[in-house]
Amino acid sequence: MSSCVVLFSGGLDSTTALYWARKSYGRLEALTFDYGQRHRVEVVLAARTASRLGLKSFVLAVDLAAVGASALTDPSIPVPELDALPGDAPLPSATYVPFRNGVFLSLAAAWAEARGIGDIVCGFNTLDSPDYPDTRSEFVRAMEQAVRLGTKAGARGAAPRIIAPFLNLKKSAIIRLGLELQADYSQSVSCYRGEEVPCGRCTACLLRRRAFEEAGRPDPLLLRLEKEGKI
Amino acid sequence: MSSCVVLFSGGLDSTTALYWARKSYGRLEALTFDYGQRHRVEVVLAARTASRLGLKSFVLAVDLAAVGASALTDPSIPVPELDALPGDAPLPSATYVPFRNGVFLSLAAAWAEARGIGDIVCGFNTLDSPDYPDTRSEFVRAMEQAVRLGTKAGARGAAPRIIAPFLNLKKSAIIRLGLELQADYSQSVSCYRGEEVPCGRCTACLLRRRAFEEAGRPDPLLLRLEKEGKI
Repeated sequence: MSSCVVLFSGGLDSTTALYWARKSYGRLEALTFDYGQRHRVEVVLAARTASRLGLKSFVLAVDLAAVGASALTDPSIPVPELDALPGDAPLPSATYVPFRNGVFLSLAAAWAEARGIGDIVCGFNTLDSPDYPDTRSEFVRAMEQAVRLGTKAGARGAAPRIIAPFLNLKKSAIIRLGLELQADYSQSVSCYRGEEVPCGRCTACLLRRRAFEEAGRPDPLLLRLEKEGKI
Repeated sequence: MSSCVVLFSGGLDSTTALYWARKSYGRLEALTFDYGQRHRVEVVLAARTASRLGLKSFVLAVDLAAVGASALTDPSIPVPELDALPGDAPLPSATYVPFRNGVFLSLAAAWAEARGIGDIVCGFNTLDSPDYPDTRSEFVRAMEQAVRLGTKAGARGAAPRIIAPFLNLKKSAIIRLGLELQADYSQSVSCYRGEEVPCGRCTACLLRRRAFEEAGRPDPLLLRLEKEGKI
């Protein structure tokens, strides 16, 4: 039976990856990282989503707050707020978490090897935020090679593969795909500030808004919050 | 000024790497992982050694016990005990920790990038225990490539390098080098069982004993314990 572990933060991309993987694999586990993130609410919501889907989900702790150097892991660094996305200019770099996906993929590789899981599935995409190097195809392939060479599973030709099905999709296309798969985005959280009601001004909020606009669909998270009288 | 972070577990190899790096770098930090290891005593001893040398040292927590599948991270899996090393046969695989060095190098890369550190130094060596894939040269080079492609530092040509000076040395040669560098091995711990007095029967103890025998030197740890009346 084909098996995978999904890097599941509970955001838009990884929620879509989870629904995508449900259709593609016989056995699936969701892995969420509790890494000292400011928006730790995502850990709770991710577990809730996985549980609603009847999936096995796990939380793995790694202290990237000790590493710091990012607005997402160091509370003294403010989350940049913008009126609009900066167009062709790079996104603010304060929310870059040093080598975060390298750490996550390494841990997922350890997880997969330990549990005899064949694939690591992640929702990485790069078209909407091209200045995050640890979501690019070249990086994913290099990590896969490192996993192949650095695991006992690799030595017997059974290293976990890294499957990133959305690498070449815009976020709006990911959303459209997710909606086809009946993904429930009403519980998904993107905002870096980590409140229940998204701030609307961090880059994660702005990218999310633009993606739903491009997809021509309302954001189910905002619809839910409105219904609940929270916005 | 040249700078490095040393992967410092407090064992023989990384203790030697620490002394080696002290001679080679103007700025040095020691990084120890608290990963749920059975022999957690190494975390305390590593900090003590670094402090005696007047070095900056840090402990980073990552929960490999949640990953398990190793006698070093799952207390229900016994540490294999042998009368002697198995010669040309593989070492027992129960003490292999899935992709441990992949996780450690990823975290060290994050650490180095966050703090503007140039190199990651590690004491990996493979001649005495060739069946641990995550200490081999090919793996180290693949991880370095992943770090180059997956960091913002890499995008500006300043990715942390991974320096593994002992890759082609036997453990006995590492010890001889360390003794030339006046490394203090009396506080270094290797035993997987994690007691103050080494068990003498796990593979780490057996490899250590053979290496000191080959180097023609007594083990300073045993000399100290003898002096303190503990063995």
